Parts: sequence; structure tokens; C-alpha cells
Amino acid sequence: MEIAPAFLTTSQALGELSLCHARLQADARFPWIVLIPRADEARELEDLTPDERRVLMDEILAAGHAVRAVGLALGREVAKLNIGQLGNVTPQLHVHVVGRRPDDPCWPGPVWGYGTAQTYPDGDLERAIAAAREALGL
Amino acid sequence: MEIAPAFLTTSQALGELSLCHARLQADARFPWIVLIPRADEARELEDLTPDERRVLMDEILAAGHAVRAVGLALGREVAKLNIGQLGNVTPQLHVHVVGRRPDDPCWPGPVWGYGTAQTYPDGDLERAIAAAREALGL
Repeated sequence: MEIAPAFLTTSQALGELSLCHARLQADARFPWIVLIPRADEARELEDLTPDERRVLMDEILAAGHAVRAVGLALGREVAKLNIGQLGNVTPQLHVHVVGRRPDDPCWPGPVWGYGTAQTYPDGDLERAIAAAREALGL
Repeated sequence: MEIAPAFLTTSQALGELSLCHARLQADARFPWIVLIPRADEARELEDLTPDERRVLMDEILAAGHAVRAVGLALGREVAKLNIGQLGNVTPQLHVHVVGRRPDDPCWPGPVWGYGTAQTYPDGDLERAIAAAREALGL
């Protein structure tokens, strides 16, 4: 499956889950995982089969645990998970799983479209990727 | 189950699905359904059982069809579904299913926290509720 270029420039590959290609958003403001189901041409949840949707729900849960693990690894415990499936800008079906805190830059508003990504400080990106992979069993 | 007051003042009851209490957001800018699982104290998807999450996924699909039906009933066909589970402001677990169009007020940004709700014109709220209930079998 081809991954839309917009994902390649804004995130780092974590690996392959049963259904989804998992990526860590390269944005130090939020621990943030993007799940991209390996389903050609899918743009909406209704384009997946019922079995695929069940697996996707399980992988959203797993990504939530991984986002919490990233927050802990960086000393910023996640207070709330935010999950979004929008695709208004990048139509390839994908699900965002984002860890939020009341002291993050746009709390309590949504992260999508807010400001610009911040580069991870040296070492933090590697720590975040390692924590996410361990939590996801990758 | 008690419904948080924030939902009661911003939306209209559609009825009860297998898992969720379904409501139509009283905002003429977007066809928009809110699903509230009848699960006491749940704030995150991980607070539901695996079976409840499977039903929730089915009900998100059904709500997507209903949102499309509302758009058609009001002469504004939905181009894209947006699904969000945030809960930063109202912690009771709920899922938003929103119909989007490139000519809506905040496309392609997210709807959450954007501007203020617009009252439905006379008759349109009733038409929207009827279309949503028919699509949901309520």
C-alpha cells in the first residue's frame, strides 16, 4: 500500500500492526500516533469490512496505551486521549490518537490544524519512538 | 444513566441504540450526531468492555449513515464524515459524528470549539430529527 506523502513528511514509521501502518507524529507538543489501515482506496470507516473495523478498534486502544507510554517516557503524563478520524486534508483513511494535558498549547481545543509542529529536542524523538514501539509490541 | 447537562442544552434526543443514547447537535452549520454510551463513569474507550467497543463501532457507522441522511433531507449532501472522541470539556464518554462539506464554515479544520452554534431555521430541526431517526431505525 502507498502511504500519502503528507504522512511521510510529518511523522516517523513505528511499524506494522495487524491492520494498520503505525506512525509517530513528529510534533513535540503532543504524544501522537497515526494509524493508517492497509486498505486500498479507503477514505471512510464504512470503506472497511466489519472485521477490519473490529481490528481497527483494537488498534486504536493499543495506540492509546502507546501514547500514554510516550508521555511517561518524556515526563509528561497523558491526562486525556483524543481520537479523531477526519481526512478533510489528506483523504487516505487514518485515525489520530493524541495524548492531551491541560497545560498543552491548545487545551481544551482540538489539535488538528492548530499552529505548527515543534521539532522534538535531541534524543526525545528516539525515546518517544522506542516507548511507542515497546507498547505496541513492535 | 445521567446525561451531562452540557449535552442537554446543545442537542436534541434522537433515542436509544443498543449501547448509546443518540442526540442530534442543535447546530444548523453541520449535520452532527453525538453518541453517548450507557456506561457509567466511562471517560475513555478503554473504560468500555471489548463487546461494548464493538457495538460502539457499529453505532458510529450507523450514525454516519444517519448524518448523511440528515444532509440529504436538508439539501446539503455530506462530502466527508468526521469522527471525534475528545471529552476535554465534557468528560462523559461521547463520540461525535459530523457531516462536512468544502463549503461549510470551518472546512477543512475541525468543528470542535469553532465559532458558535447556529439555530436551525423553522422546520429544519424537525426534518433533521426525522431523517436521523429513520436512518437509525428509531
